[in-house]
Amino acid sequence: MSDQRHGTDDEIGAARTVGSQAVRRGLAAVRTGTPIPLAAPIRHGVGFGLVGRAAPMHFMLRTGSDYAAGLPERAGFGFADDVVTLPTHGATHVDALAHVWQDGLMYNGFPANSVTSRGAQHLGIDKMPPIVTRGVVIDACPGGARSPSDPVRRDELAALVANAGVELAPGDALLVRTGWLAAALAGDADSTAWPGLHHDCGAWLAERQVAVVGADNPAVEAFPSFDPACQVPLHIELIRGHGVYFAELMALDALCAAGQPEFLFVLSPLPLVGAVGSPVAPVAVV
Amino acid sequence: MSDQRHGTDDEIGAARTVGSQAVRRGLAAVRTGTPIPLAAPIRHGVGFGLVGRAAPMHFMLRTGSDYAAGLPERAGFGFADDVVTLPTHGATHVDALAHVWQDGLMYNGFPANSVTSRGAQHLGIDKMPPIVTRGVVIDACPGGARSPSDPVRRDELAALVANAGVELAPGDALLVRTGWLAAALAGDADSTAWPGLHHDCGAWLAERQVAVVGADNPAVEAFPSFDPACQVPLHIELIRGHGVYFAELMALDALCAAGQPEFLFVLSPLPLVGAVGSPVAPVAVV
Amino acid sequence: MSDQRHGTDDEIGAARTVGSQAVRRGLAAVRTGTPIPLAAPIRHGVGFGLVGRAAPMHFMLRTGSDYAAGLPERAGFGFADDVVTLPTHGATHVDALAHVWQDGLMYNGFPANSVTSRGAQHLGIDKMPPIVTRGVVIDACPGGARSPSDPVRRDELAALVANAGVELAPGDALLVRTGWLAAALAGDADSTAWPGLHHDCGAWLAERQVAVVGADNPAVEAFPSFDPACQVPLHIELIRGHGVYFAELMALDALCAAGQPEFLFVLSPLPLVGAVGSPVAPVAVV
Amino acid sequence: MSDQRHGTDDEIGAARTVGSQAVRRGLAAVRTGTPIPLAAPIRHGVGFGLVGRAAPMHFMLRTGSDYAAGLPERAGFGFADDVVTLPTHGATHVDALAHVWQDGLMYNGFPANSVTSRGAQHLGIDKMPPIVTRGVVIDACPGGARSPSDPVRRDELAALVANAGVELAPGDALLVRTGWLAAALAGDADSTAWPGLHHDCGAWLAERQVAVVGADNPAVEAFPSFDPACQVPLHIELIRGHGVYFAELMALDALCAAGQPEFLFVLSPLPLVGAVGSPVAPVAVV
Repeated sequence: MSDQRHGTDDEIGAARTVGSQAVRRGLAAVRTGTPIPLAAPIRHGVGFGLVGRAAPMHFMLRTGSDYAAGLPERAGFGFADDVVTLPTHGATHVDALAHVWQDGLMYNGFPANSVTSRGAQHLGIDKMPPIVTRGVVIDACPGGARSPSDPVRRDELAALVANAGVELAPGDALLVRTGWLAAALAGDADSTAWPGLHHDCGAWLAERQVAVVGADNPAVEAFPSFDPACQVPLHIELIRGHGVYFAELMALDALCAAGQPEFLFVLSPLPLVGAVGSPVAPVAVV
Repeated sequence: MSDQRHGTDDEIGAARTVGSQAVRRGLAAVRTGTPIPLAAPIRHGVGFGLVGRAAPMHFMLRTGSDYAAGLPERAGFGFADDVVTLPTHGATHVDALAHVWQDGLMYNGFPANSVTSRGAQHLGIDKMPPIVTRGVVIDACPGGARSPSDPVRRDELAALVANAGVELAPGDALLVRTGWLAAALAGDADSTAWPGLHHDCGAWLAERQVAVVGADNPAVEAFPSFDPACQVPLHIELIRGHGVYFAELMALDALCAAGQPEFLFVLSPLPLVGAVGSPVAPVAVV
Repeated sequence: MSDQRHGTDDEIGAARTVGSQAVRRGLAAVRTGTPIPLAAPIRHGVGFGLVGRAAPMHFMLRTGSDYAAGLPERAGFGFADDVVTLPTHGATHVDALAHVWQDGLMYNGFPANSVTSRGAQHLGIDKMPPIVTRGVVIDACPGGARSPSDPVRRDELAALVANAGVELAPGDALLVRTGWLAAALAGDADSTAWPGLHHDCGAWLAERQVAVVGADNPAVEAFPSFDPACQVPLHIELIRGHGVYFAELMALDALCAAGQPEFLFVLSPLPLVGAVGSPVAPVAVV
Repeated sequence: MSDQRHGTDDEIGAARTVGSQAVRRGLAAVRTGTPIPLAAPIRHGVGFGLVGRAAPMHFMLRTGSDYAAGLPERAGFGFADDVVTLPTHGATHVDALAHVWQDGLMYNGFPANSVTSRGAQHLGIDKMPPIVTRGVVIDACPGGARSPSDPVRRDELAALVANAGVELAPGDALLVRTGWLAAALAGDADSTAWPGLHHDCGAWLAERQVAVVGADNPAVEAFPSFDPACQVPLHIELIRGHGVYFAELMALDALCAAGQPEFLFVLSPLPLVGAVGSPVAPVAVV
């Protein structure tokens, strides 16, 4: 399915392009040594309104209030505890390679059949290593929000990267700001149509062998797509075809505001065995 | 409560010691450029048996099986989706500063009363910034598991760090391997008593102004404690007294095996608004 | 707080009025021997939009699809299994007596302080016995939905019951159809204002010593209330004052269509220890 | 598969045998008019240790403690609210007809393939009507707990029913006490082997056309089974073959102690759309 497949049993995909060279490139990109968080707040009962993705829930198991109501501080201390319920694709997250398929086949030919109620036997998020590499960010709509009907096409994407003074290298993480998340957090976004990459960016990104493509929207690519044959053509081409990791619902405003297109990028999924995605809190160090 | 308090409204505690100097110290510690994940696998229905901490749960919302059973690939693709339920302190995690208190007061004098069923109004994990700093790891029981009755005391801790050839600096993350997690994953650990730091390490660590103390056990400190007045004296002294972050149930075996005591350490909590902890997947770059 | 209190330790409230006489009255009301279910369907991801009440969730743990995908029928059979997450007040349900209070006191003087993160120590739904009694149903808006601004006042309530040819007796369950649920299921109801009983019905109902008041709306009483001092005055007067059980979000259309105002009524809460309500599937036998 | 099938689209199975005659037979069985609850308590974090069935969870969303900690009683009242997470087969429950299959086929020939991650399209618990009928209880081990190696065989079952002075009729609910639940609640039961019916009871029960078979154990039938070809032969014969409803983990001690073998039986599942079982709180009226 791809020249990037790394052997018949490869389950980590494009993460394999993130070697020590990519790590060093990331380290070298640090200027002021300032970490910038790239995850959006996760609030009880507040979701993004995406079909099939419930809002996160947060339940307290023990509270300070309980002590105010008379619970004694036994053994010299009091404490609070809690539980969270998270849709793996309903907050800032990374897609596992097992998230999508076509014609019953996932990345590297693993069958969709291997994803059952017990989880993904192959290509689950537990197979994804932490990504430490150089990040590159571009703003596809400075100061505003792009329209769903105006996708970022290949030439614009190439120009934005070039204007940033960066040449993408294998293993890089490319992040694209569309303005959707800021609008969504302000209660002003459409959860059935969003701006993002046009699928004609696929081949260009694959050639550059990026390991991660991220965006501040629900799917990296624009939705609805402009491919009559497929609703998520970029997912199929990059995730299925090349094992590229998609990081979605990222918070990129602060990073764009920092004005530094290159940085150290760290994205580390929770090792949820068999899960097809993970909520994450990626970090840029500028 | 502490000379380390950073003003009356400070809610980030020792994270304030992680300035650009600490970041640079971390970057400078990288040798081969190899990321090592520090989180233990999270499996459906498999917990650590700690009182009050349910096992994580993983629920598939849509599977490849569904397609095998006849669901057509609509719009040119198939996909899987899922939901996880996680006790915030039941997997590799970091404690929020709102996790513990004494005499009704948390770090920096914030009242425990501000932690209600709606979450922590102050000192919640959403207030914690991502930590990027130098990490230092020591192995308190090479090749085995320490006994709960044999805590790591101050002098031993100081010796282990010195033997590693490291001098701790403000903002560092100190990680201690006890062997408990490996034993637990092998089904061979006691979930009511575990090895860890003795509370006489508290003042020593506070003086060195570490930002994070981590361990491969449930509480960093040994349990039961050796303080007749308090079951978790190190929590009270360091978290409450100095705003230090405790990272618990960490997977440190691979890092110890790497044989490099200094490294770049990245720990980024999910911004769970009002939560008193977060599952995390910290990374060491050696 | 009420002449209906049954001793200082009473935790079952008006359920005590449901003696064998009420049971027999219920049995005697059966005509054709036809059970009619009174619960609304519970669908994954579909809630009523009430503030603070998440939608129910339904997760499959094992499916027939898994077998289609290759799981063998071990030991001669296949099976499916699942888990549900239910807001106790977000589907057809009954309020525990611990659900509401005023001035820090619940029914029979139990302190609200006894309801902590560990659940209700007193008056939890586990204290409520199953109710088997005579039911009486009235339709406050035949064929349509009542307006939130047109509450059912005491005189109308009395007239509707009288017109039904029924005289209420101690231990009866009175059910009132407002049309809200049908509108809600049709996607056409307001989840911030609904029709229901006016609080001037309180004393009248208390005098008749009904054990249960039910309605096809979220709170039995109209919301917003017409009491400037309290948003839920009927809850306070009847639940707190007299230990009456409120059954809410009931499906009453089929029962009203049956045209038989008296029937055998059975409502049996799940014995959720410490919970302040329970989803229920009450039954009328006409 | 069975002469009891009621047409090609039948999804309610043996519930169809519960006509008005069965309801009247139930009503006529009432003597003193005393309801007896038949559900075991549901406690946060306390399960039965059955493989694949997590413990129930109970989460408070708002507590009296919160008010003790300073939350004002806005609008004249205070309230508590909560959420429960329940394994549908992990507390007192009834199996949906979609719970089991053999050779890919469920009751009435519906394919197991129709049970996907979205739930059971056919034979889900939402298809089951409330059951109101005559109940009959027998105690297979008065005062103690039966051994898993000593199943209740057909002749003993017939004798126990005869000794109770009852002749089973179509639509009846037969409940069998084995003593397992009492032992389990006392922390003294085996969750991998339990006493119950031998599968040679299947034909006898099918001939009598009972609608419900219940027991105070996890599966009605003994486990492991005594059928080398199938682990749950009675499930297959009665649920799949005849659409009989199995009620499991029932609390039958109080009912047995009442000493009245016949009673009015009411079991009403939550209408969980697509679920393959429901927690229930059945009631006997003696």
